[in-house]
Amino acid sequence: MNIFGHTFRLQIFGESHAACVGVLIDGCPAGLAIDPGSFSGDLERRRGGSLGTTPRQESDLPRILSGVFEGRTNGSPILLVFENLRGESGAYESIRHTPRPGHADFVALKRFGGFADYRGGGHFSGRLTVGLVAAGVIAKMLIAPLTITSRILEVGGGQNIERQLAEAMAEGDSLGGVVECRAKNVPVGLGEPFFDSVESLLSHMVFSIGGVRGIEFGAGFKSARMRGSQCNDAILDGNGRTATNHAGGINGGLTNGNDIVFRVAVKPTSSIARQQETIDTRTGMPALLSVDGRHDACIALRLPAIIEAATAVVLADLMIEGRLVPRVLPAAEA
Amino acid sequence: MNIFGHTFRLQIFGESHAACVGVLIDGCPAGLAIDPGSFSGDLERRRGGSLGTTPRQESDLPRILSGVFEGRTNGSPILLVFENLRGESGAYESIRHTPRPGHADFVALKRFGGFADYRGGGHFSGRLTVGLVAAGVIAKMLIAPLTITSRILEVGGGQNIERQLAEAMAEGDSLGGVVECRAKNVPVGLGEPFFDSVESLLSHMVFSIGGVRGIEFGAGFKSARMRGSQCNDAILDGNGRTATNHAGGINGGLTNGNDIVFRVAVKPTSSIARQQETIDTRTGMPALLSVDGRHDACIALRLPAIIEAATAVVLADLMIEGRLVPRVLPAAEA
Amino acid sequence: MNIFGHTFRLQIFGESHAACVGVLIDGCPAGLAIDPGSFSGDLERRRGGSLGTTPRQESDLPRILSGVFEGRTNGSPILLVFENLRGESGAYESIRHTPRPGHADFVALKRFGGFADYRGGGHFSGRLTVGLVAAGVIAKMLIAPLTITSRILEVGGGQNIERQLAEAMAEGDSLGGVVECRAKNVPVGLGEPFFDSVESLLSHMVFSIGGVRGIEFGAGFKSARMRGSQCNDAILDGNGRTATNHAGGINGGLTNGNDIVFRVAVKPTSSIARQQETIDTRTGMPALLSVDGRHDACIALRLPAIIEAATAVVLADLMIEGRLVPRVLPAAEA
Amino acid sequence: MNIFGHTFRLQIFGESHAACVGVLIDGCPAGLAIDPGSFSGDLERRRGGSLGTTPRQESDLPRILSGVFEGRTNGSPILLVFENLRGESGAYESIRHTPRPGHADFVALKRFGGFADYRGGGHFSGRLTVGLVAAGVIAKMLIAPLTITSRILEVGGGQNIERQLAEAMAEGDSLGGVVECRAKNVPVGLGEPFFDSVESLLSHMVFSIGGVRGIEFGAGFKSARMRGSQCNDAILDGNGRTATNHAGGINGGLTNGNDIVFRVAVKPTSSIARQQETIDTRTGMPALLSVDGRHDACIALRLPAIIEAATAVVLADLMIEGRLVPRVLPAAEA
Repeated sequence: MNIFGHTFRLQIFGESHAACVGVLIDGCPAGLAIDPGSFSGDLERRRGGSLGTTPRQESDLPRILSGVFEGRTNGSPILLVFENLRGESGAYESIRHTPRPGHADFVALKRFGGFADYRGGGHFSGRLTVGLVAAGVIAKMLIAPLTITSRILEVGGGQNIERQLAEAMAEGDSLGGVVECRAKNVPVGLGEPFFDSVESLLSHMVFSIGGVRGIEFGAGFKSARMRGSQCNDAILDGNGRTATNHAGGINGGLTNGNDIVFRVAVKPTSSIARQQETIDTRTGMPALLSVDGRHDACIALRLPAIIEAATAVVLADLMIEGRLVPRVLPAAEA
Repeated sequence: MNIFGHTFRLQIFGESHAACVGVLIDGCPAGLAIDPGSFSGDLERRRGGSLGTTPRQESDLPRILSGVFEGRTNGSPILLVFENLRGESGAYESIRHTPRPGHADFVALKRFGGFADYRGGGHFSGRLTVGLVAAGVIAKMLIAPLTITSRILEVGGGQNIERQLAEAMAEGDSLGGVVECRAKNVPVGLGEPFFDSVESLLSHMVFSIGGVRGIEFGAGFKSARMRGSQCNDAILDGNGRTATNHAGGINGGLTNGNDIVFRVAVKPTSSIARQQETIDTRTGMPALLSVDGRHDACIALRLPAIIEAATAVVLADLMIEGRLVPRVLPAAEA
Repeated sequence: MNIFGHTFRLQIFGESHAACVGVLIDGCPAGLAIDPGSFSGDLERRRGGSLGTTPRQESDLPRILSGVFEGRTNGSPILLVFENLRGESGAYESIRHTPRPGHADFVALKRFGGFADYRGGGHFSGRLTVGLVAAGVIAKMLIAPLTITSRILEVGGGQNIERQLAEAMAEGDSLGGVVECRAKNVPVGLGEPFFDSVESLLSHMVFSIGGVRGIEFGAGFKSARMRGSQCNDAILDGNGRTATNHAGGINGGLTNGNDIVFRVAVKPTSSIARQQETIDTRTGMPALLSVDGRHDACIALRLPAIIEAATAVVLADLMIEGRLVPRVLPAAEA
Repeated sequence: MNIFGHTFRLQIFGESHAACVGVLIDGCPAGLAIDPGSFSGDLERRRGGSLGTTPRQESDLPRILSGVFEGRTNGSPILLVFENLRGESGAYESIRHTPRPGHADFVALKRFGGFADYRGGGHFSGRLTVGLVAAGVIAKMLIAPLTITSRILEVGGGQNIERQLAEAMAEGDSLGGVVECRAKNVPVGLGEPFFDSVESLLSHMVFSIGGVRGIEFGAGFKSARMRGSQCNDAILDGNGRTATNHAGGINGGLTNGNDIVFRVAVKPTSSIARQQETIDTRTGMPALLSVDGRHDACIALRLPAIIEAATAVVLADLMIEGRLVPRVLPAAEA
C-alpha cells in the first residue's frame, strides 16, 4: 500500500525519472487558502543546494491539479504534481544489472520481477519525499497554533558539520546524521491506547523516509539506563505540565500536553563515488560499482523539512479525528 | 482505532481489572491446528514470575471462543479471551484522582472524560499484551520456517542483570533495558516502498507496547556516525546475501533476505514504591504518591516474548500478502 | 474481512453451533449508559417466535465483556458475546456432504477447504446477525434524535401475511418478502461524493445480511420509468425540504435532510422441508435432500430489527465522522 | 473518503470544470502492458455521442503520469489524468445560488460551506466516472478469462429506446432506464461471509455512480414473491453448476461459480430544460430554474461501460486477494 492516514490520507506516486512525482491528499477540510507559492518555503528547505546536498535543480513547485477552487481547498481530493525536469536516465543504464549497495535496486528487482523503473531508484527514490513535504505544508496550516520544528543535532558524529562534510566529500564518501524534531502547543489526548499510539503513527511515517535507521522519543535509548525515579516525569499542574520531559510528550500512547520530542538516526548516503562490491544480477558473479552523478554527501541535511512534514501529517490526522480542526474552515476575511 | 494489520488483522480489547482481556484475529488461514495449550510457551515467557517481574498470578491460557472447529482454524475470526482472575481493584481507589507519573492516568482522564476504567491502567494496562502474544503464537506457526528470537541485551545499563535488579528493588526503584530481536529465513521483497516499509510496520507495532521509547534497525543510531563506505552492505551473491548487515535486513523498506535485526529501548517501570510528585485532579494541587502493589521492577524482562509476537504478527501479514502462506493450509494427516 | 466502518467499527465473529457469536465494537464514544437489558427490545424483535419464525430459543442477551465500566462505555472496544445454548449439532451431520441449495455450504467447502464449521451454516449462519442488532442498539442511542423504523411491506407477494404463511408452511415451503426502512431527523450532508455515498454504505451493510437480494432507494426501480420532470424533487425551503422524496433523502451520495427511505427484497428461506436436488460432494453424484429442524418459514419477518441495526450502524459512523456525536458524552445526571 | 478497495485500490479526484479528473490506482500487479490507447474502447462506449447522450466532446484518453515503465505497469501507483478541455464555466454562474433539483448542489453547499466547485457539479459530476472506467480497463485485463458484459434492458419503461428518447427530448425532458450486468467464468469462493459479501462490494461500488437508485442480484425483487422450492437453485454437479440462477451467482456472500448477474435502476437525468422549482440559497425564497447546456437525455445509456468497470474493479480486488492474479505478471513474449 502507498496510502497512509485515517481521515487525512496521503497517497504517494511517481518515479524519479518518469513524468512526475506527487501526492494525492484526501480528507483535507474545505476553505484552506493555498496556491503553488505556499509550498516554496519547506520545499526549498528540503531541496538543499548547499554544501553536502546534491546540486540537482528540480522544478520544485507543484501543480495543483484538483481540490482547490478560487484559491481555497474545496473538500475534494487535492492532487499535487511535481514534474521531473531533468531526468538524465542514461546515467543509470550502467546500474541496471549491478544493484547499488544500500539502495533498493536488488529488492526492487526481486519484488517487481524486472518491471520496476530502475532509473534513479524509480518509485524508491528520495525524490518521492517532495510530495510528503507538500502535504506537510497543508498539514502545518491545519494544525496551527501547534508548531513543529526540527534541526540537525550532529553530522558524521560531530557538531562541526562543514568540516565533517568537506573531509568526507574529498574522499568520495558520505555521512550520516541525527535530526531532532519538536512539536509545541500540543493538545492533550491525541492518539490511541494501543496500535495507534502517537509513537506508533509517527514512527510509521518517519520510517517511510529513506535512510532512517532509528527513532527515539523523549529520553529514548537513555531511558533504558535510567531508574524509574529518574525517568518518571513529575506532574506539576492540572494541565499536565511535567517537571522533565523524558516521555517526549506522550504517555500510554496519547499526547500529554508537553512538547513532543523525538530524534531520528539517518544513515550516510548510499550513493558514493568510492568503489563498492556488488554482483551482476544476470550472472550472480561479483562486480565492482562506483556511483557517479548528483548525490548528497549527507541526506540528513535534507531531512528536517521532511521529518517536520511527516510529523505534521500525522498530527493533522489526529487533530481532525479529535475534532480540533473544523471540517470547513471559516472564511478568512471581510 | 484498536485494529492493526491489512489482511491478518488484530483487534485488542479488555481492561486490566474488568472481566477479561483478549484479541480478535481476522484473516487467519484455515486449517491451522491450535488449542489452548499452543499458547502456553510464549505466554509463560511473557508472564515472568522470576526476579524483577511481578508475582501476580494470572490465568494465562486463553479460551478460544470462535474460529476453531475440530482443533483447526476454520477461516472465520478467532476470538481469544483471557479472564481476569484476581482483580484487586480496591488497591487502585487511592490513585483515582492522583495520576501516576509515567502512566496514562492523566491522559486517559482527559481523553475519556472520567469514564475510563482507572483500575490498574484499565485498557492501557500492560495486561493487554497477552492478546498480542497469543496472536503472535498463531503468526509464528504461519510464517515457519521463518523464525523469530529476541533477548535482553542489558538491564539498567549493565549486563549483570541480577545484581542490577537486586539493588533497584532494594531501593523501591525500577530499571529499564534493551531488547534485541532477530528474524531468520526471511524471504526477499516483503514490505512496501514508502508508507508500509517493513521498518514502518514493525515500529508501528512495537511502539504499541507500553514502555517502549526507541527502536533502531541494523546499525541504527550508530549508522549516523558511519561513513557510506562503512555502512553500505556489500552484496555477495545472487540471493542478496551481504557481507555485513548494517541495514538490518531491509533496503528501501523491503526485506533483502538477510536477517531482520532491531533493538528496542524500554524505559524503567513507572510504578515504583518511592514517593513521587503529582497532582490531585479534583483540585489541581500538588500531591504525593507511592505506588504499592504488584509491579515489575523491570518490564524489559517481559518484553522478549511480546516483541517477538509483534514481529511475527507483522511478518505474517506481509507473508500472507506476499502469498507465501496459503489461504487454506494443507491438512496435516495420518 | 469481517470488519466494517471507518470510525465506529464492527467486527463480527462466531459460528452457529460453536461456543458463541458476537461483535466487537471499536470507536464508540465514552459515557454511554448500557447494560445487558438495553439490548432486549431489538433482540426480541429479531428473535421472532411468532408464526413463520423458528421456535429455537436462544439466550439472546449478550454478556458485555469489555468496554463498559460502572454502567457506561469507557472508550475502549466493547465486546458483546452471545453464548450458543442449544447447538443440536448432530442434526447437521447428514448435510456435511450434501450442500443445501440456496445456502453457503458448497462455497464454504470450496473456500475453506473442508475446515469450515458446517453445523447450521457455521460462520455463515443468520445467527451472526445478533451481533449486528446489538451494535445497532448502541448506534441508535448515539444518533438520537435521528430515529429509524422499518416494517414488512409484503410477504409472499401479498399483504395477508398470516394466510400466506399458513399455506406455505402447510406445504413445507417458505416465503420471501419486502421490508421498508425509514430514517427521520437526518442531518444534511452525511456521506461522501463518490465511493462512500450513503447508498453505497447502506447497501454494503444491508447485503451483509443473509437472504437480501435487492435494495432500492426512494423511487428505486420505479424511477427508471419516470421522466426527469416527475422524478426530480422540487426544493421548497432553505433547509432543503422537498415536495416529493423520490431521491430517498440522498443527492449526490449525501443526505439532503429529508427522510432516508429504502426497500429491501428478501428471498424465501432456503431451508425447506420439501425435497431438493443437490450432489454428494464426495462423489459429485446427484443426491436428494430435505432440510429438517428449526427454520423460519419467512426470514423477512426477522429483518426489520436487523435492517434498522444495519442502518443505525452506518449512520452512527457518519454522524461521528461529521462531529454530530461527541467523543465523550455528557454525564447524564444530577 | 474517496478511496475504494482493499488490495487493488482506487482514489478518484478532480472536478468537472477544473484542470482535470482522474484516478490513482494502487496495488496493480507489475508487468501489465498498457498505453493510452488501451482505454479507448470503454471510454468511447462511456462517452456516448449518440442520441440521448450529451454532445460534449472531451479529451477522453488519459495521460499516464506514473506507474508505467517501458509500456508495462511497474508495481507502483498508476496515475491517470484526463484533462478537462472545454469547461464552459460561465454557463454555471446562474445556478450558483439556485440548487438544481435532483443534483448535489444543495448538499454540496451545506457540506463544504460554499467552498465546493459548483461548476458542472464539480467533484460530484458524472465526469468523474472516466477515472472509474479507466481503472476498469486495467481490471478487466487482470481478471481475464473472467469477462464482464452489460446491456440496456429498458429506457423510459420501454424497449423502443429511440422513440422513447425522441419523445422525451422533444419535451425538454429526460428518461431513466435499467441496465443488466453479467460476469462469466467466475471462480468459486470470491468474497467474504459477512461485511464483504460480493453483493456488498458490488453494490457499494455501483451506488458510487451518480443516478443509480436500485440494484438487485439474480431473481432480485422477484425472489420476494417466490417460494423457497422455486427460488433455490438445484446443484447439478461437483463444480457447483446450478439448474437455475436465482441467486445471481452468489451464495452466503461468496461466488458459487455460476454467472454473477445483477440489474441496476437508473433515474432520469436530473438536468432538464423544463422549468423546475427550487430556492435561492441566499434568501431561502422560491425560485424557478431551467437547466440549459449539454446534457444527456438518458444517462442510463452511458452506464453499461461504467457498471462493467465497477464490477471489474471489485472482482479484480477479490481475485488478487484470492491469489488468482499473480503479483508480477509473466513477461509476454520472446
